[in-house]
Amino acid sequence: MSDSPTPISLDELRLAARNHAMPLEALRYPVTPVGLHYLLIHFDIPAVDATAYRLEVDGLVGSPLSLSLDELRERPAVEVPVTMECAGNGRALLEPHVASQPWVLEAVGTATWRGTPLRGVLAEAGLLDEAVEVVFTGLDHGFEGEEGLDYQRSLSVMDAYRPEVLLAYEMNGQPLPPQHGSPLRLVVPGWYGMTSVKWLGRITLVDRPFDGYYHVSSYRLRQSEDDVGEPVTRMLPRALMAPPGYPEYMTRARIVPAGPWVLEGRAWSGWGDIDSVEVSVDGGRIWAAADLERDLGGPAAWSRWTFTWEASPGEYELCCRARDEAGNEQPLEPVWNLGGYVNNAVQRVSATVA
Amino acid sequence: MSDSPTPISLDELRLAARNHAMPLEALRYPVTPVGLHYLLIHFDIPAVDATAYRLEVDGLVGSPLSLSLDELRERPAVEVPVTMECAGNGRALLEPHVASQPWVLEAVGTATWRGTPLRGVLAEAGLLDEAVEVVFTGLDHGFEGEEGLDYQRSLSVMDAYRPEVLLAYEMNGQPLPPQHGSPLRLVVPGWYGMTSVKWLGRITLVDRPFDGYYHVSSYRLRQSEDDVGEPVTRMLPRALMAPPGYPEYMTRARIVPAGPWVLEGRAWSGWGDIDSVEVSVDGGRIWAAADLERDLGGPAAWSRWTFTWEASPGEYELCCRARDEAGNEQPLEPVWNLGGYVNNAVQRVSATVA
Repeated sequence: MSDSPTPISLDELRLAARNHAMPLEALRYPVTPVGLHYLLIHFDIPAVDATAYRLEVDGLVGSPLSLSLDELRERPAVEVPVTMECAGNGRALLEPHVASQPWVLEAVGTATWRGTPLRGVLAEAGLLDEAVEVVFTGLDHGFEGEEGLDYQRSLSVMDAYRPEVLLAYEMNGQPLPPQHGSPLRLVVPGWYGMTSVKWLGRITLVDRPFDGYYHVSSYRLRQSEDDVGEPVTRMLPRALMAPPGYPEYMTRARIVPAGPWVLEGRAWSGWGDIDSVEVSVDGGRIWAAADLERDLGGPAAWSRWTFTWEASPGEYELCCRARDEAGNEQPLEPVWNLGGYVNNAVQRVSATVA
Repeated sequence: MSDSPTPISLDELRLAARNHAMPLEALRYPVTPVGLHYLLIHFDIPAVDATAYRLEVDGLVGSPLSLSLDELRERPAVEVPVTMECAGNGRALLEPHVASQPWVLEAVGTATWRGTPLRGVLAEAGLLDEAVEVVFTGLDHGFEGEEGLDYQRSLSVMDAYRPEVLLAYEMNGQPLPPQHGSPLRLVVPGWYGMTSVKWLGRITLVDRPFDGYYHVSSYRLRQSEDDVGEPVTRMLPRALMAPPGYPEYMTRARIVPAGPWVLEGRAWSGWGDIDSVEVSVDGGRIWAAADLERDLGGPAAWSRWTFTWEASPGEYELCCRARDEAGNEQPLEPVWNLGGYVNNAVQRVSATVA
């Protein structure tokens, strides 16, 4: 990877200091340890008192609900590993430059989330016939697009009723940490992370498509300000590699002792199982199939891949790419859009074998 | 804070994506939750098998030791809150620009570390008369300054024998997470974080001042490449403020509703207790004393401060500065050095009261 022609401003750096990615060597862990899972927080982490907390369910429902954390914990519970990726992952590698949280390519993580299925809570509230969308409101507040707003995202009633959608209160066997939405967050497996609203305060049933900032002005694939564009939804496939050998501190380029190396990484898609992962050591000219292993249960978690590389002295550009069972494949070059979303171009790792 | 005239390269951004800071609103927590504490990792997080782990103690000792984690846990244990800051905190605000991990100003955190005092292990090994320094070698390996090296730092025998220096195996009541040095790290209260070697593999007693890369080429206050400079040691005083009101997403500038606000933050120094914290709302022209509260036990943890601000509509630049009992005080403007270390110039927060 050569250095970007478009450098990063201090504004972007301040975001990068807060919203950290997953160090690539953490691809070794099937479940990402807390603190290594990526984080994207639009505003501030709110201070929420879990003992006084209530989840409000209102709008077009027969019986509005107000549930404490204990009441949510008493409901049927499931625990499931879910791979989650930021929709802006890969943004900093786009040209022309897109100014926002400047992710390189490791804004991802897999956690074991425990919670109660959303559909049970919706069924208890009883949806009125006019209800078509479910709006999720976080307890975080700030300014974006020159207006004050709470963080809000919606799902169609059909998507909200999918059995895998959770109201989660535990991550990796512990109560949610503050930065991951304590005490309760939405988890929508398969979708980019903006959908999984943290610090969830309110669920509101509405009778029309929700037109909040994060649906209308943000998280859309647009070519220009005039372009309405398509909404960002499920994760496109991506394979990542834990870079082999040892890093040079400043450039993160790799120095690799000669010999056989088992390259390893993980791959995921929100559109179905990973069908194949391929590896190239020459920058993407020749590709060879990696071995795939589904080492975590559940359809929503990444798969491990390995590839034995006989590393002989020289300069290499290591790449990997995934294809999912729906036929989506990673491109060799980034595909630009105005918001810098869903850039799943293949990873490139510079390595010197000595 | 205006935008930096010197932007950040992709190399620096890759470091910033890995080595995250503490979001400033986390100043609300006396003990920083895991995952919000700052992290600086020179190379990769190594994969260390805690069950096979041994700490080796060798060099100029009467009885070399090889201790398992269980053997270390059976030794006398202490648990103490310690504030730790990266020596490069504030680097990205320096001019001329210094290219390295581009910290803004929140590379800090406070954890409760549990472990056994280093002095007990040293006493058991029995230092020979010629031993003058203690070299700590991490299990992480990489390249910096064009040579392959393990991460290594040393202390004088006198500093290593200080009772507060720990071999720590727990952080905030849990086994160390991988990114904080699992299964064992050194914790040297009062010193900048580079001293507290993570993934500690070996302790070696030597008969002369250690001349490793991170003592001779790095972590020194130098004005030029020819300047030998002084070593970076203990933390200079710093006060930080949790920015009031609500952030604008991209700039992190604050929008604050008019009315009384309790500004709050924390202050620390490695040279002694915090003597005073002062606040300015006009960019540093007029200062007023904040209230100080030592809400955590132990001499090595930060102190909380509060200041009631009657916010009326207008534009403000909020600042805070700390002075320690040794007489060290934060400067209004950064003091430059070649490595970009110990820039403890006062924090400046742009706020609009509306």
